[in-house]
Amino acid sequence: MKYGIVIFPSKKLQDLANSYRKRYDPHYALIPPHLTLKAAFNTDLDADKLTDKLEEIAKKYEPFNLKVHKVSSFQPITNTIYFKAENHNELKGLHEDCYEQLPGGKPEHPFVPHVTIAQKLSNDEHSDVYGSLRMLGINHEEIIDRFHLVYQLENDSWTVYETFRLGRDPQ
Amino acid sequence: MKYGIVIFPSKKLQDLANSYRKRYDPHYALIPPHLTLKAAFNTDLDADKLTDKLEEIAKKYEPFNLKVHKVSSFQPITNTIYFKAENHNELKGLHEDCYEQLPGGKPEHPFVPHVTIAQKLSNDEHSDVYGSLRMLGINHEEIIDRFHLVYQLENDSWTVYETFRLGRDPQ
Repeated sequence: MKYGIVIFPSKKLQDLANSYRKRYDPHYALIPPHLTLKAAFNTDLDADKLTDKLEEIAKKYEPFNLKVHKVSSFQPITNTIYFKAENHNELKGLHEDCYEQLPGGKPEHPFVPHVTIAQKLSNDEHSDVYGSLRMLGINHEEIIDRFHLVYQLENDSWTVYETFRLGRDPQ
Repeated sequence: MKYGIVIFPSKKLQDLANSYRKRYDPHYALIPPHLTLKAAFNTDLDADKLTDKLEEIAKKYEPFNLKVHKVSSFQPITNTIYFKAENHNELKGLHEDCYEQLPGGKPEHPFVPHVTIAQKLSNDEHSDVYGSLRMLGINHEEIIDRFHLVYQLENDSWTVYETFRLGRDPQ
């Protein structure tokens, strides 16, 4: 099975992200707007084994304030435009634990916590869209108190397997 | 906010359902294949208030064996075609508790637990599709040990807020 670990931010931020994703992100229909803690990875491990480890990770961290104050781009690596999240200790710790304590290898890129709003654009599209979105800007804060283990279906869409609440003892 | 309460069955059953939904269900991209315990309802109640009640409900029921042995249709009420689940005591109890202990009024229809695979078809389409799917049939069993509280975004798609595990004490 192919799994991923993500944070779904508030409805407010998801709706805002979707207003751009609808036009600029071909993954729009595959998963709601999210901040990826661990990118898609394959494992034969049972989902319940992953769950046990993720419960242990979740209880190490308290809910935290997510701040999003900037629209940014990964160009020239990729033409992905995103809401940039400030890199909290909690986000960094969750990211590192999800890589170190679960299968799937090392991160491909340094961790830049973000919510994607546009991707797979041509260079010209990227210039246009990034120019206008960067000017619009964003100013958003919210409390994050949970993350999710998701798995991919044959049609490339994602289903949630389990929710993990930060700072709570496993059930 | 508009909420719903659903069971996502195994990847295997979701993939099978999606192979039909892709062509025959306009909600295909809005939510993965699911069995609805409580239909979409509006409430000003905080999600965490709903969560408290749902944790209490979840611990009353043990994981159970879901059996799907029939493709059926709601015609003449609607042209919806679905995988029919046997009506376990657990499903019935979960359905009733979700209506009695949460806001949102009474069920509109008697409870027929199912996973939708086609809807909003014309009468001619319905005859054709139901004729062939009914002949194909289905023979599937799996253990259900969780359900999910979901909420709807502005674009009509659904995000998971929380997962509830059957038979476990709340965290």
